[in-house]
Amino acid sequence: MSSLRPEEARKLATAASVSPLSNCQFCGVVISSIADEQKLEFTNKYKGSCTLLCSYDSQGVVLRVVSDDDRSHVLKEYMIAADTDAAQMGRRSYAVSLDADNLVLRFASEQDQQLFRKVVENVKHLRPKSVFSQRTEESSASQYFQFYGYLSQQQNMMQDYVRTSTYQRAILGNAVDFQDKIVLDVGAGSGILSFFAVQAGAAKVYAIEASNMAQYAQQLVESNNVQHKISVIPGKIEEIELPEKVDVIISEPMGYMLYNERMLETYLHARKWLKPQGKMYPTHGDLHIAPFSDESLYSEQYNKANFWYQSAFHGVDLTTLHKEGMKEYFRQPIVDTFDIRICMAKSVRHVCDFLNDKEDDLHLISIPLEFHILQTGICHGLAFWFDVEFSGSSQNVWLSTSPTAPLTHWYQVRCLLPMPIFIKQGQTLTGRVLLEANRRQSYDVTIDLHIEGTLISSSNTLDLKNPYFRYTGAPVQAPPGTSTQSPSEQYWTQVDTQGSRNSSSMLNGGISVNGIGEGMDITHGLMHPH
Amino acid sequence: MSSLRPEEARKLATAASVSPLSNCQFCGVVISSIADEQKLEFTNKYKGSCTLLCSYDSQGVVLRVVSDDDRSHVLKEYMIAADTDAAQMGRRSYAVSLDADNLVLRFASEQDQQLFRKVVENVKHLRPKSVFSQRTEESSASQYFQFYGYLSQQQNMMQDYVRTSTYQRAILGNAVDFQDKIVLDVGAGSGILSFFAVQAGAAKVYAIEASNMAQYAQQLVESNNVQHKISVIPGKIEEIELPEKVDVIISEPMGYMLYNERMLETYLHARKWLKPQGKMYPTHGDLHIAPFSDESLYSEQYNKANFWYQSAFHGVDLTTLHKEGMKEYFRQPIVDTFDIRICMAKSVRHVCDFLNDKEDDLHLISIPLEFHILQTGICHGLAFWFDVEFSGSSQNVWLSTSPTAPLTHWYQVRCLLPMPIFIKQGQTLTGRVLLEANRRQSYDVTIDLHIEGTLISSSNTLDLKNPYFRYTGAPVQAPPGTSTQSPSEQYWTQVDTQGSRNSSSMLNGGISVNGIGEGMDITHGLMHPH
Repeated sequence: MSSLRPEEARKLATAASVSPLSNCQFCGVVISSIADEQKLEFTNKYKGSCTLLCSYDSQGVVLRVVSDDDRSHVLKEYMIAADTDAAQMGRRSYAVSLDADNLVLRFASEQDQQLFRKVVENVKHLRPKSVFSQRTEESSASQYFQFYGYLSQQQNMMQDYVRTSTYQRAILGNAVDFQDKIVLDVGAGSGILSFFAVQAGAAKVYAIEASNMAQYAQQLVESNNVQHKISVIPGKIEEIELPEKVDVIISEPMGYMLYNERMLETYLHARKWLKPQGKMYPTHGDLHIAPFSDESLYSEQYNKANFWYQSAFHGVDLTTLHKEGMKEYFRQPIVDTFDIRICMAKSVRHVCDFLNDKEDDLHLISIPLEFHILQTGICHGLAFWFDVEFSGSSQNVWLSTSPTAPLTHWYQVRCLLPMPIFIKQGQTLTGRVLLEANRRQSYDVTIDLHIEGTLISSSNTLDLKNPYFRYTGAPVQAPPGTSTQSPSEQYWTQVDTQGSRNSSSMLNGGISVNGIGEGMDITHGLMHPH
Repeated sequence: MSSLRPEEARKLATAASVSPLSNCQFCGVVISSIADEQKLEFTNKYKGSCTLLCSYDSQGVVLRVVSDDDRSHVLKEYMIAADTDAAQMGRRSYAVSLDADNLVLRFASEQDQQLFRKVVENVKHLRPKSVFSQRTEESSASQYFQFYGYLSQQQNMMQDYVRTSTYQRAILGNAVDFQDKIVLDVGAGSGILSFFAVQAGAAKVYAIEASNMAQYAQQLVESNNVQHKISVIPGKIEEIELPEKVDVIISEPMGYMLYNERMLETYLHARKWLKPQGKMYPTHGDLHIAPFSDESLYSEQYNKANFWYQSAFHGVDLTTLHKEGMKEYFRQPIVDTFDIRICMAKSVRHVCDFLNDKEDDLHLISIPLEFHILQTGICHGLAFWFDVEFSGSSQNVWLSTSPTAPLTHWYQVRCLLPMPIFIKQGQTLTGRVLLEANRRQSYDVTIDLHIEGTLISSSNTLDLKNPYFRYTGAPVQAPPGTSTQSPSEQYWTQVDTQGSRNSSSMLNGGISVNGIGEGMDITHGLMHPH
């Protein structure tokens, strides 16, 4: 394991400091205050010029005024806070009202004035906006990083056995891509992927985490004594500095329907730190979309909205809100799992290439649809799931959230049509899915469907930020009417062949959802019609 | 129904305008800009004084400069936006940098300068902070009012049959308190309580609602054509203006554990609009606290935290985070219901008097505890529920969320002790519950318990903002070992007396929790030991 080269150590020291501006000072500053408001005349507050010493603290910036001649004695101390009045005046001066004093500060140079402006803006959170803060509403970001700061939330993801084991297999199975390499872990959380990189022989891992989880990751790094290997850097990849470029970027940036949370843009943004020919783990993602039929789901949402169809609810007529209530329920994507045989056609695949796609490509994603219908029936909407691939030098490893694969904490997502459409086998269903990124770290999802050669079409717009979590842990049921033989007969023949009844087998660990799924037997084996 | 008196109509017109400042103008303003930075000298920008015309638009405030002599011709137009530099200078001047111009504005009077300051602050959202915004973090408030803007959330509360019917009974049963009266509905939501007030004969109802639900309430008011009775006013009670004082204030400000959401402070704040001898509906609230024993709940939380007690989780030693994980799980208050016989002593009652208590009294609530233990056993923590009383002129009506009463959407709340304590019948358990209000519209809950005459004590601090919602709809079970006779025998005697088996009776409507509780038979009748 190579020890840190000198200039690397120096650079590393600065890596941890999040904002470029630490403490600074301005000398040769002339401070004056208003003498005559009528004639707008000013007088110097101090004999000769002064030095302003700025130092950061939690509330803002402490400003200490000392005379250029005798710097040992602090003339006055002010606090610049978020609500401090400050206005630039001309090229070298600044008007600022501190406590009771309304001052004009005349700096020695234009550069000094501009530097002072940065200090003030920094405090007023008008910081030059990073790519992340420009695209994200403050309250969404604060809620988001609070959520990922909980150990129980990290536990929920780590206990997703399929997710954690597949990532470990992808990394350890391609140790050649990690041996003695420099690795960047984007959104490291507890740091579990960084540990896998070290297990695969990585020389150095930079684990970047914006939530409070960074402090816990640091504790794990120390107690597993891999401090010399893993550097935990608190902050956002769009805002922090790294001391060097990296060979591999690892991350788990997928949300519901792949794109939710808009962390993929952060993952693509991180490529600014990737050496040419560097690797991305995962390497690309496939979003799968298919029309589905599920009468019970449709009527469940419909019936909830019918609450507003009461004309005498405790004597009040609610019916005017029925239309609005219907719209609101159908704006909620449904998160749970289902039997793939509810899909009426082969899924359409949309590829997101993590090596080459640009961050901005994910602001507006338009996916053309063309389905050849295999089953006649009523289409209630579109189902979404995704797979991601790790293309390693030794082997390719896939992580799938398909309804045919073992259930993960991503489940699958379905978008309903308020007006379902009846389609016949052999017809072609065309249309489009439009994903528009919004400032709440999510997407407005618009689905348009049209039966070719007819006037029949239907569409809906959904808010991916506010899904309805419908999973209850109950085993998935095949769509009614799937049996092509008498199930009763099937049962007796099955009893004969098996001899004694086997106990039901546990296929995989329970998926814990606030404890509901704990230890439940979640079997997703397809019931194969004989 | 009395028609609106003239001055009432005039006042009403202003009622709807949320911010006191609409368009305004300042004449006699001298505008100058910096001429010589070295000597800090200024020159007038225009011959003679000017008038500043300010008008609001979505981006901020448009500032039009016209000469006092010839107001027909606009000399210059600027935009004051959230990030505009502005600093007060002396008593009558203001330094402001607009586009490329760094100007000093000298107002005709100090009042004008202060009014201009209000315009600038208003735009920079540094609005003079209302009582509400001073005590609430921006991101918490935005998430809070987004939540109550959903029809599905209003539906969830309206479908709580016990809540909605008790409120209706309290109001209709005391119609004398509402007949021809002026009513204020604080946090009106869909407006259902305002409708009840009108049903009870109210002359006028002001329905105040800060979330987007206000638009839906307005639609309901119109479609039930009670526009002349109910005025929906969007905004926060701490920030809006009413045209007149009121006779009665109605509201449903209770959260989990009564105090969660800190809406009670808003309810008490609203008393500034109450006529002397006016009524409050509800009138007072009782918070009940009792020690409980529930081994299964304790071990459930303990076992979840034990995830972090693994020393080889995918090869990583997590044990250093075990203590932190334990702390986090035990900081979560548990929201669900239980059989009251898990309580080990009579509950202590803490009264909150909505007619007389001050808003600030709810910032720090210290509740002394003294329990006389009735059952020997292990105490795992404190259980909380509340009742509220409507003291009407005709009858007193109670709404209870006790474990002995039909289940409501408030359920009950339990706070666990990481270190449970063993207590014997006859011993005295003393201590204190301290509720400290925080800026996330919730409370830090500290529970201290001490067995009198011993050195045994235990305590915990919990975050009421992040409860664990444990209710699954399963019927409540009596604490094990409650039967004092052979249950098997009891069953056969019961079969004989009843003759044929009755079908199980549905006691009350299902409580829908994301649909889980829908239509479930939630019977909470006590199983009376024979």
